[in-house]
Amino acid sequence: MRISLIGSGNVATHIAAALKNAGHRIVQVYSPNLQNAAMLAYHVGATAVDALKDIDAETDIFIIAVKDDAITSIVPQLSTFGKLVVHTSGAVSLDALSAETANAGVFYPLQTFSKTKELNFWQVPMCIEGATETITKQLEELARTISNNVYRVSSAQRKVLHLSAVFACNFTNHLYGVAEQLLKESNMPFDMLRPLIAETADKIKAHSPTTVQTGPAVRKDERTMQAHLQMLEGKEALQEIYLLLSQDIIKNSNAGNGDN
Amino acid sequence: MRISLIGSGNVATHIAAALKNAGHRIVQVYSPNLQNAAMLAYHVGATAVDALKDIDAETDIFIIAVKDDAITSIVPQLSTFGKLVVHTSGAVSLDALSAETANAGVFYPLQTFSKTKELNFWQVPMCIEGATETITKQLEELARTISNNVYRVSSAQRKVLHLSAVFACNFTNHLYGVAEQLLKESNMPFDMLRPLIAETADKIKAHSPTTVQTGPAVRKDERTMQAHLQMLEGKEALQEIYLLLSQDIIKNSNAGNGDN
Repeated sequence: MRISLIGSGNVATHIAAALKNAGHRIVQVYSPNLQNAAMLAYHVGATAVDALKDIDAETDIFIIAVKDDAITSIVPQLSTFGKLVVHTSGAVSLDALSAETANAGVFYPLQTFSKTKELNFWQVPMCIEGATETITKQLEELARTISNNVYRVSSAQRKVLHLSAVFACNFTNHLYGVAEQLLKESNMPFDMLRPLIAETADKIKAHSPTTVQTGPAVRKDERTMQAHLQMLEGKEALQEIYLLLSQDIIKNSNAGNGDN
Repeated sequence: MRISLIGSGNVATHIAAALKNAGHRIVQVYSPNLQNAAMLAYHVGATAVDALKDIDAETDIFIIAVKDDAITSIVPQLSTFGKLVVHTSGAVSLDALSAETANAGVFYPLQTFSKTKELNFWQVPMCIEGATETITKQLEELARTISNNVYRVSSAQRKVLHLSAVFACNFTNHLYGVAEQLLKESNMPFDMLRPLIAETADKIKAHSPTTVQTGPAVRKDERTMQAHLQMLEGKEALQEIYLLLSQDIIKNSNAGNGDN
């Protein structure tokens, strides 16, 4: 397929590279910053443009990978070409596109991307939605050329997926940071925790998280929890977080989940 | 060295196996449940006992790996042998042993163990504390026969380490569980999030967590956060957790940490 990328950030970069590797032709890369567009375009053998008026109609599909807020301002101009227009956002519904064109879909890679960190795209879950069954099938087919994990996901489901990812990944990363800070204050390197963090994430590859929950809360070890809250004196936010998460773990284990 | 294990749970099992593999002799395994003691003893070529009075003095070191609450009740009997006695707990101070014997230390593996899940013990951080410098050195030497990550950690530091692990691992695992539950309610499999969780944990192997924080909070994307809170209506605990963690991420990024 002939594909054009609208955007040149992390998502655009990884999707363009995966599609190029799968044998598709990347026609154009658009970014308001020409240098950024050119950098990605160079890597995937495309031409770079920095004005929407220069976008070439000679493409089968426009993949929009820009900040959520910028999507709606771009769609009207793209829809004039009558080609398939998809976005790559977890948080934006299909309606944002289909209000402008019937030729609309979603091509959402559920992963956290950094430009400098390579990853195996075959494992990235691709979440597909199309304005019609034909479009859905077409996008599924395209997704299967770059990923082994292709799912049909409605706009309502995608919102839940995005919310779940905030809990499982954004919040999780913040808790890593809290731990790093606590260690630092006691002159210990974060390296000490890295193997435990890796193992915690590794465990749930084959288990449901609730069945492998460990720690003082699930053991209802009140003495340790009280000691921890005392150690957090003066850090009200962390005390509250500790208390809330512990209470939620206890509530959850009382409900019959978890086996520790 | 000749080593006896007091306990036959996850920690005792992994430590005994690592020490045995390193060429040490495991003399006895004690557990009030003889069957459990016998199972581990069989694997490491030791004898099993289920009464403290049957414990053999012909050992160089007793490694206590029992529940925290049970440690103090066992120490008086072990201390009568005049041999080195160490515990393996993150939450119990050295004093719990040294009140009974000057021959005391801590041999704490900072990892989460399951009997059924193998792991590379060489990467397990071993946290060492001795009642004397001689004991500390002796335990460091022993630890280096099974791990490449040996640290001297005081009782006060070990408590902080344990608290940090609750944030980075126990709470993190609970958030995985929250995500799983949210997905389930919208008919999506947890498998969809597993690659993202793996990548999130993988990222911090080479980065400080605060520098790779992503998500709506660090972007101060109020609209998405409001939408997420609305989706959590009726789940007060999750709303509170969402709000507290988001506020803490924002506070942290305002303080100049994080670059996203």
